[in-house]
Amino acid sequence: MNRLHRYLIIVAGGKGLRMSASKPKQFLLLAGRPVIFHTINRFTDYDPDIELIIVLPEDNIEMWKELCHQYEFKLNHNIITGGEERYHSVKNGLSLIKHESIIAVHDAVRPLVNNATIDRCFKKAENEGNAVPYIMPSESVREISGNNNRALQRDRIALIQTPQVFRSDILLSAYAGDYDTSFTDDASVIEAAGHKINLVEGNIENIKITTSEDLISAEALLGNLT
Amino acid sequence: MNRLHRYLIIVAGGKGLRMSASKPKQFLLLAGRPVIFHTINRFTDYDPDIELIIVLPEDNIEMWKELCHQYEFKLNHNIITGGEERYHSVKNGLSLIKHESIIAVHDAVRPLVNNATIDRCFKKAENEGNAVPYIMPSESVREISGNNNRALQRDRIALIQTPQVFRSDILLSAYAGDYDTSFTDDASVIEAAGHKINLVEGNIENIKITTSEDLISAEALLGNLT
Repeated sequence: MNRLHRYLIIVAGGKGLRMSASKPKQFLLLAGRPVIFHTINRFTDYDPDIELIIVLPEDNIEMWKELCHQYEFKLNHNIITGGEERYHSVKNGLSLIKHESIIAVHDAVRPLVNNATIDRCFKKAENEGNAVPYIMPSESVREISGNNNRALQRDRIALIQTPQVFRSDILLSAYAGDYDTSFTDDASVIEAAGHKINLVEGNIENIKITTSEDLISAEALLGNLT
Repeated sequence: MNRLHRYLIIVAGGKGLRMSASKPKQFLLLAGRPVIFHTINRFTDYDPDIELIIVLPEDNIEMWKELCHQYEFKLNHNIITGGEERYHSVKNGLSLIKHESIIAVHDAVRPLVNNATIDRCFKKAENEGNAVPYIMPSESVREISGNNNRALQRDRIALIQTPQVFRSDILLSAYAGDYDTSFTDDASVIEAAGHKINLVEGNIENIKITTSEDLISAEALLGNLT
């Protein structure tokens, strides 16, 4: 059986509002190199043939090109501008899909995904249509509703990471539907289209860099990654 | 009005099963000093008059005494042995409470709680009987039930930290009730006794050190703490 073509959509939306920094967080330096280059290399190390689609806010594209030059990032890639929310950015990225394929959607600000997580996601999605990595919280968890809140059963709560990986037909048809404000990731989009989500083990270092504290942790964890 | 007496119960249960280390994680070195000493000093820096109750597994007490000697930890403190689960350890700690007071219960493995979080918790508990710090997840969140799972609304999910702070009458009467396996923290115990939980803002660095990756992050974040 021929292996399906693989795409990687890197979503670099966000204006870094939670981070006290002038640059969008995907362009901040992690061990001397912009976060997004670390992120992309995680996947190209896993599969050098993966086709790259990078979704950037329109006003970041000039900076992206300068950084590619400055840091000698020479891999072939497609660029497309992002939309209002993460959903719209992914949808723009999907407009470049040309083959029946496996599509991984990954946050630009998760440079610490490891090889094993990427592999589990692709294998599961190739076999069962979709895969989403998760970790269990080490905290107790509460659900807030208005002024009240209540304990949730911790061992039933999964914190969801990326890459979220899908067979192209499933992801494309789900994104052809209407937008809903409850869509915080791709799993929620295909779930709304009626699919059951397959959870696979993530890796604990695979944090989303949304604050300056996260960047400090990421720099420390980078040397530890396998 | 006289201020109520303040207690700090440090819960150092756990056998460090998730950590590939021979020592219990509260005794691992963080910037050259056992985690638990950092943790305790967070509170004694906030209030030098706070009364310390340290709950340790029975077979850790010898090591604790050696570490106190080695690292010249000379603060007055009460020691009591822990129980089977966190609940039983806290209950043992509560047996040493002698005054109408405000009681903070804090994980030994959270050395990065900051002064502002501690202050918010005490102020709120002094005024309203209890306070529990939380942060919002940066991840999407799913609820697992059996082989299925479903998206939860992320903006309604709170990840709960410590210190959890209570008026003594509330905490003591709640712990006088029966144990339930759903008790993962003190908030869940007083909630089961009919109290409404007051959430206050935590601090993002206030991670629970349960893995070697957490220890690496904690060491990096330590210098950043206010």
